[in-house]
Amino acid sequence: MTAFHFERLKTDGKARTGKLHTAHGVIHTPVFMPVGTAATVKAMRPEEVAATGAEILLGNTYHLMLRPGAERMARLGGLHKFMNWSKPILTDSGGFQVMSLSGLRKITEEGVTFQSHMDGSKHSMTPERSIEIQHLLGSTITMVLDECPPYPCEEKQLVKSMEMSMRWAARSKAAFQPREGYGLFGINQGGIYPKHREFSAKALTEIGFDGYAIGGLAVGEGQEKMFEVLDYTPDMLPEDKPRYLMGVGKPTDIVGAVWRGVDMFDCVLPTRVARNGRAYTSEGEVNIRNAKYAEDLSPLDPSCSCPACTQFSKAYIHHLVKLNEILGSMLMTQHNLHFYQELMRRIRAAITEGRMDELYHAEMEAEVKQKEARGGGGKKQQSTFNYVPE
Amino acid sequence: MTAFHFERLKTDGKARTGKLHTAHGVIHTPVFMPVGTAATVKAMRPEEVAATGAEILLGNTYHLMLRPGAERMARLGGLHKFMNWSKPILTDSGGFQVMSLSGLRKITEEGVTFQSHMDGSKHSMTPERSIEIQHLLGSTITMVLDECPPYPCEEKQLVKSMEMSMRWAARSKAAFQPREGYGLFGINQGGIYPKHREFSAKALTEIGFDGYAIGGLAVGEGQEKMFEVLDYTPDMLPEDKPRYLMGVGKPTDIVGAVWRGVDMFDCVLPTRVARNGRAYTSEGEVNIRNAKYAEDLSPLDPSCSCPACTQFSKAYIHHLVKLNEILGSMLMTQHNLHFYQELMRRIRAAITEGRMDELYHAEMEAEVKQKEARGGGGKKQQSTFNYVPE
Repeated sequence: MTAFHFERLKTDGKARTGKLHTAHGVIHTPVFMPVGTAATVKAMRPEEVAATGAEILLGNTYHLMLRPGAERMARLGGLHKFMNWSKPILTDSGGFQVMSLSGLRKITEEGVTFQSHMDGSKHSMTPERSIEIQHLLGSTITMVLDECPPYPCEEKQLVKSMEMSMRWAARSKAAFQPREGYGLFGINQGGIYPKHREFSAKALTEIGFDGYAIGGLAVGEGQEKMFEVLDYTPDMLPEDKPRYLMGVGKPTDIVGAVWRGVDMFDCVLPTRVARNGRAYTSEGEVNIRNAKYAEDLSPLDPSCSCPACTQFSKAYIHHLVKLNEILGSMLMTQHNLHFYQELMRRIRAAITEGRMDELYHAEMEAEVKQKEARGGGGKKQQSTFNYVPE
Repeated sequence: MTAFHFERLKTDGKARTGKLHTAHGVIHTPVFMPVGTAATVKAMRPEEVAATGAEILLGNTYHLMLRPGAERMARLGGLHKFMNWSKPILTDSGGFQVMSLSGLRKITEEGVTFQSHMDGSKHSMTPERSIEIQHLLGSTITMVLDECPPYPCEEKQLVKSMEMSMRWAARSKAAFQPREGYGLFGINQGGIYPKHREFSAKALTEIGFDGYAIGGLAVGEGQEKMFEVLDYTPDMLPEDKPRYLMGVGKPTDIVGAVWRGVDMFDCVLPTRVARNGRAYTSEGEVNIRNAKYAEDLSPLDPSCSCPACTQFSKAYIHHLVKLNEILGSMLMTQHNLHFYQELMRRIRAAITEGRMDELYHAEMEAEVKQKEARGGGGKKQQSTFNYVPE
């Protein structure tokens, strides 16, 4: 068996490459985790997800605890076996989704009580229950239960929330059953305030985790504000543990966060926009529904080697997406996931070769140029809010 | 180049095996053609369709003439290139769907005028235009335009319709541009009347086609009546040409029709019911939505070697289909198409080994037993009406 540990390989400025060793295999960081909300990355077979280069998936505890249910999943042999995915899986705590059920939930020091969005059934979620559910699912990486404050949030309210999250983090750690090769991550909070981020970082480090997430970002504050927080927060977290920015993001969000010292990412963006016809390409974003592609025999992305690009034309995918054909979602998702994994390969190569600074500035400039080309150059860059599950 | 021709191999009673040679490759008969209405077999990649054993697809002219359009498809290099399918494609004439647009179409000796169900735009369809469109699509096998009378239909009306269809068949033949390896099929009509089927068969044979379809069946008459017509109609058609029963059907429909001398089939049934959660299996039909499968770790069909059955459990597919996950449609469709191709392999093997009579009776009895087991044994067997495109 492999002990769960993070092996740092190369550092370039604040950016690092590494290997995260787990019971289900090695993850090369910086890493992007496709989201498989309901035990499936939508429109993809697990072997196709793996073929894009993905080494770890994210599963949503809230959805899985309702369908098929945590105890049922354990009886079925766990999430890995259920969905036929043998590589690592990280699950969120379920807290974020539960707390998004406005009107249907109540938060106390003990935890959250809520009603299912599916059938109105009543449930409760405590730090201990969240850890238990993730154990039943068989998650390789378990996340502590925390409260994600809204943005903007009054400072007093934010501190109160963060302090409770730190108490919940301690309860989560106490509830977690260590198993060889499995890890538990804490979640840093503190909003846009360095001193509260610092307080939270110290509290978490004192408890001790296998990795540290940065929470409370990508909730509408915009890329500029997010980068400001990332200018100092990663430095407050242990250097020898992986750092995970939850729910982020678009390509420049990721490049910018890696440049600031982040190692792990998850986001619904590439899969969700794919199903709506938006592709990320080496030539910028492509809205394949656009009528100008109706007779375009070129591939979605001429630089891409994925099956969607090597086997089919823009004209065909345009046709499929316009008619809401399932194959349209399949091909678009495959391409976007491939694009994201290719981005991570480029990032890891840049760090290895000491070119991360160059890559970061080039990607930021390319995005500005693409926005200008689309006539949207004057607008502030917004980080996409993308923590909503698939 | 290969001349389009039918090579008969083995005869067992009225059933035959053969090889249909075409410009796009060889088709082993009896053959089942999956339906790819809008240039895609729904929820399947073309290579996955081929992997089930499918050697030919059916495309729907009506849908393709509207989206992406016939002239546009020609500019894009034809249907084969468009959808990345290099094996044979048979297209229907478009007539059946056009004539199903009740209230929106008008039939005269010249042809049909109709309005698109998509945008209300006006179109006309004549035998000549249908042949032209299929040429623009690049179909390996072109079907003549005919009128499919309703069931039941008054004899006088039926004869009038059939006679017009025969005149349209002659016009279709005159309009067809022969190309090496491409074929044109006539369509036999005549309802449930042997003498009219005979008249139609003679008219078609006199015109001369590369294959002969049997039309006007599977429109609600039921399996018993359909088999009555098939007891004599195939014998009226040239022995040395393939015989194609359009829009059929469920497994016993196919076995019964092969036993009566039919070589080719197409049907939306396996793909359409798949997306709704119904699987054909060696143990009978399975409605995967049934709650009893929620913790069933066995495969959809223990005798099946398709990826859906070797990689996933009933419990997982139940979960996916209940949540309307795209992967549920993908796996169910893959299994059902695999089941149908496996049925055709079993049929061809039975004919080769002189066991077709045995297979036919065994399949009919198995269906009755399954119906009894489900508590529906007393009801008459109905052929599914399944010519409605995907």
